Amino acid sequence: MELTVVGSVAIDSIETPVARRENILGGSASFASYAASFFVPVQLVGVVGDDWLPEHTNIFKEHNIDVAGLEIEKNGKTFRWTGKYLQNMNERETLDVQLNVLGKFKPKLPESYRKTKYLFIGNGDPATGLEALSQIDKPELVVADTMDLWINIARENLDKLIRNIDGLVLNDSEARDLTGKLNTLEAGRTILEWGPKFVVIKKGEHGAVFLSKNEIYVVPAFPTEKVVDPTGAGDSFAGAMFAYIVAQNGKLDENTIKNALVYGTLIASFCVEGFSLESLQKLDLNAINARREQFKKIASF
Amino acid sequence: MELTVVGSVAIDSIETPVARRENILGGSASFASYAASFFVPVQLVGVVGDDWLPEHTNIFKEHNIDVAGLEIEKNGKTFRWTGKYLQNMNERETLDVQLNVLGKFKPKLPESYRKTKYLFIGNGDPATGLEALSQIDKPELVVADTMDLWINIARENLDKLIRNIDGLVLNDSEARDLTGKLNTLEAGRTILEWGPKFVVIKKGEHGAVFLSKNEIYVVPAFPTEKVVDPTGAGDSFAGAMFAYIVAQNGKLDENTIKNALVYGTLIASFCVEGFSLESLQKLDLNAINARREQFKKIASF
Repeated sequence: MELTVVGSVAIDSIETPVARRENILGGSASFASYAASFFVPVQLVGVVGDDWLPEHTNIFKEHNIDVAGLEIEKNGKTFRWTGKYLQNMNERETLDVQLNVLGKFKPKLPESYRKTKYLFIGNGDPATGLEALSQIDKPELVVADTMDLWINIARENLDKLIRNIDGLVLNDSEARDLTGKLNTLEAGRTILEWGPKFVVIKKGEHGAVFLSKNEIYVVPAFPTEKVVDPTGAGDSFAGAMFAYIVAQNGKLDENTIKNALVYGTLIASFCVEGFSLESLQKLDLNAINARREQFKKIASF
Repeated sequence: MELTVVGSVAIDSIETPVARRENILGGSASFASYAASFFVPVQLVGVVGDDWLPEHTNIFKEHNIDVAGLEIEKNGKTFRWTGKYLQNMNERETLDVQLNVLGKFKPKLPESYRKTKYLFIGNGDPATGLEALSQIDKPELVVADTMDLWINIARENLDKLIRNIDGLVLNDSEARDLTGKLNTLEAGRTILEWGPKFVVIKKGEHGAVFLSKNEIYVVPAFPTEKVVDPTGAGDSFAGAMFAYIVAQNGKLDENTIKNALVYGTLIASFCVEGFSLESLQKLDLNAINARREQFKKIASF
């Protein structure tokens, strides 16, 4: 049971209050794919330019990620994001964005991906998600992540995407912006009325909330002091969470959903401990499950 | 095993986006006492004026709260607070404060309270807490709650109080203000260096964190859409949390602490569903434990 992941693949330059790194692997699909691939084989769909390093492709390949869908565009440059985190590590400023090849990206799913049952649409232009979705025969479960930018500049396509997916993942502030509701739960319930079976609202250091018509589950964040770089935490959370559900054949029972939230939280907690995919690359299921035991002691009652 | 509670007893007038109520029972000691009294007998220490209604005293008396320490000052008026909650119910504005008899309140513990083993110092001038503390023989466990006002105007006494208590309860923004540390956990650890055995950091709708030298526990808030009036939620949380620990003879083992956090969370979740003590007055242990089961389904894994 493969999970297909579409979204951005990027080269990031990042400054935090403690360090600064240039030209590192980033992008919503990169983080979501890598996080997902701890649980299921992943099929990546994205685009990069001729400045892309083969080492980066190898990071994916060596971790259960099929890169047949990673288009390398000659005569183009990879999407680049330069950002700076403020002292509290919760707020960030975008210093520079170069869309480059991502600007006119039209995903083309390899033949081998088109029968995928599970699609994750990472944060990106909703038109990309809609295009990917149209190329899949009969997906069983489709989950999308989004962010404020698309709420502001691509609302029509975003609304269309939301009507055609099973689960939406977004931040609490974005849920409020999208719905105009100030209460997180009210915002979530409003989104459910638009079509999705479930909504997962991410609250950063405060955890996440899962909402469906008749269910609600909450999970706190794994408490951590050593945040090195928060980039990709939300993508990793969403990728791991959905991948866990896919690993249970797409079942959406209480136990699966709770574990999905927990594993999403754990993978995100590792992600922020390093730049790029660095701390995820050091990880295996034993280390994840050891932290799961710690988390259970900390947060389960 | 009685719990002695000292703090403010107030008459509040409150405006929320949905309703407005005048001259209702409020104050940190009122909420903390009432919340605590679901778990242990409470001895209240506070002061009111001649505008105080006997009905309000009866609310305490009928709920396991000894009012021998509630001083009624003739020729004085009760502390009055008038406030307004903004649309999101998280922010509030103080419209008017009249300290009245609270202004020169020097708590005098009745003889019968002076051998209490457990003291809760509700939010208020730290001088009041220090005075109450000095009148108790050998308290076993002392917990204090505080707020930004005292960090700003009574720092010296607050520091002295913090050095002499076992547990401090405060909001996350207050923990940051008090310590200058932006990360909640770092802020908590800094406070532990000043003396307390444990710190509980309240995050409102995002739950709470318990920190001691070697332990950390987190609990999300009980998710609720029907917030009528948030006044007293933090006091109720702290009062119920500490009372649960007192009910287990002051033990601070993992199981007790987690349950204390959970019961504090539950009582606070009921508190916000009505003005003043109204929704707590309708409550019994069966209703609390029914919500505990709900909460376990929602948040435990």
